[in-house]
Amino acid sequence: MSTTLAWQGTTGGVPLQCVEIPRREPRRDDITVRIDFCGVCHSDLHALQGATPHMSDSGGLVPGHEFTGTVVSVGSAVTRFAAGDGVAVGTLVDSCGECAMCVVGQENFCHLGPLSTYGGTDPVDGSVTKGGYSREYVLREKFAYHLPEALDPAAAAPLMCAGVTMWEPLRALGVGPGSRVAIAGLGGLGHLGVKLAAALGAEVTVLSRTAGKAEDALALGAEGLLLTTDEDQVRRARGRFDLVLDTVSADHALSPLLGVLALDGTLCVVGNPLMTGPRLLELTSGRKRLTSSGTGGTKGTAEMLAFCARHGITADAEVLPSSRVTEALNRLGSGDVRYRFVLDLSDLDQKNA
Amino acid sequence: MSTTLAWQGTTGGVPLQCVEIPRREPRRDDITVRIDFCGVCHSDLHALQGATPHMSDSGGLVPGHEFTGTVVSVGSAVTRFAAGDGVAVGTLVDSCGECAMCVVGQENFCHLGPLSTYGGTDPVDGSVTKGGYSREYVLREKFAYHLPEALDPAAAAPLMCAGVTMWEPLRALGVGPGSRVAIAGLGGLGHLGVKLAAALGAEVTVLSRTAGKAEDALALGAEGLLLTTDEDQVRRARGRFDLVLDTVSADHALSPLLGVLALDGTLCVVGNPLMTGPRLLELTSGRKRLTSSGTGGTKGTAEMLAFCARHGITADAEVLPSSRVTEALNRLGSGDVRYRFVLDLSDLDQKNA
Repeated sequence: MSTTLAWQGTTGGVPLQCVEIPRREPRRDDITVRIDFCGVCHSDLHALQGATPHMSDSGGLVPGHEFTGTVVSVGSAVTRFAAGDGVAVGTLVDSCGECAMCVVGQENFCHLGPLSTYGGTDPVDGSVTKGGYSREYVLREKFAYHLPEALDPAAAAPLMCAGVTMWEPLRALGVGPGSRVAIAGLGGLGHLGVKLAAALGAEVTVLSRTAGKAEDALALGAEGLLLTTDEDQVRRARGRFDLVLDTVSADHALSPLLGVLALDGTLCVVGNPLMTGPRLLELTSGRKRLTSSGTGGTKGTAEMLAFCARHGITADAEVLPSSRVTEALNRLGSGDVRYRFVLDLSDLDQKNA
Repeated sequence: MSTTLAWQGTTGGVPLQCVEIPRREPRRDDITVRIDFCGVCHSDLHALQGATPHMSDSGGLVPGHEFTGTVVSVGSAVTRFAAGDGVAVGTLVDSCGECAMCVVGQENFCHLGPLSTYGGTDPVDGSVTKGGYSREYVLREKFAYHLPEALDPAAAAPLMCAGVTMWEPLRALGVGPGSRVAIAGLGGLGHLGVKLAAALGAEVTVLSRTAGKAEDALALGAEGLLLTTDEDQVRRARGRFDLVLDTVSADHALSPLLGVLALDGTLCVVGNPLMTGPRLLELTSGRKRLTSSGTGGTKGTAEMLAFCARHGITADAEVLPSSRVTEALNRLGSGDVRYRFVLDLSDLDQKNA
């Protein structure tokens, strides 16, 4: 076991203290990294404020889960790194490796829960991980990445959390040339969202409550800024975007963001509402989409009828004379129906006669 | 103005009374329909129970919005129908015709709100529409459909609400051969969902709390039934479906339905939770999808880094010596950051020395 210096707090909050912390004895597939740069993520603040319930902080919390550095030494089974290599590390440092999510490279959704870079409990030795606000880190090489030489090591550090948090939904949702993408919130995540979406070829608009960010939005690659506090702008943007990527960390209403979405558009929430809205939180586990629908228009209805005619599809219906409407409703209310009551209105002719 | 017989209730509930109601004088583009069959939809029950707040019931409520019948007469400008034609009518009988949704044939999402077959207020004369639990109906030909001769008129009636409510999300979500679709709830909507999805070539599973429905599920075209009350079955089905189409009308938890979804799968809720969950209700207006995401796995992270290297994308970062970590966190907390703080950990070397 070696030690390193780190900035440590408790869930009581800032300020952090510079303390000496232990790092584990490197295992065969471990690399030891000298950390050069570590981004400061909003989740670090949340963790220090005790707002991240699953975080372990026994013995103090060392935040930091987006860092770049240099490989200092490698274990005997390490194949991808050598001492002196530039390296980048993100939010995860281990996972089960065997579940459906790990097998496809989505260890962030590991069924057993991935090991967080800080505040997680190492499955091998039970120790609590301490993050990148420190000088040295030890981790499995599988969760380390070669830092591209083309990238500035300091500015690249935030790519490892903020960057990939933007990247994955952009890719999962097929963003490319012709996509109309709105990025809500122009902070650490949002500004990278704008850069990445624009580089993917999308038309990008920033949604913000701050008109003063318009110039920045353009400089980052957006075509404009839509002021979400301006009802008129929001109304005129109705149905404009295929994707709204919501990075806002403060509590906020989702209605305006849903309103500017096109038919079949997607609202992707990665900001703070995930913490406060339990329904939304369920969606993070495996990147599910929640949608709904409400009957159909003339196009779909005509298509549906033609399709049903071609395939001989109709309802399984129990046809009742319309005079038994009350019985039908009562039985429907008690679930006694297979699968649809249909009223035959011809009995009204007798009443009319 | 003519009159017809109808089954009318109030929002006080059943029983309905057979009464004479007026039908408007046909306009130039109207057809008059003799209603032969009208399905009984769960929403009819909700409307009679007063659970549909936007419903007008001044003068009594005549439910019914999925019916088939015969054209009795046509207005002078009608081009698609002639007396004697078989006809089908669904939940909508008019819309603005000019908004983005109407233009693409999605009148169900008309920005001004479409005119409901019952309980709506006609924009031309201000009268309240009365539905298909009656012998005659007058409507614009645009919202009437030729009833395919291949279909039984009674069994086809429920296609006009239940059928198209299943059809539209199946199509919008690209269901076809190879799609793994789960239909939650085997009632009026669900049984048509199974038939339609199976005919589209999907592998269909019914999710139900009632094991006794297994035989029906198979007969309708499903490959099996998954008992949602059996935790073991639900656990083993983790990540199995591309789409869960939720037709359950009673209040129920969405967690098990989200759990059986695959990565990037979609939960489409069309049942009652739409009424009780305000967040979900927002999703109906234009068929939006709600999704979320959480950082990335090794595959996405490596892809992202390569992409950023190719495009020279990094964060806009303010690099601070790590000893200023408290300042960084405080400024982050107050929003004073453009766009990411990055700690330079090299100052820890001096502390160590």
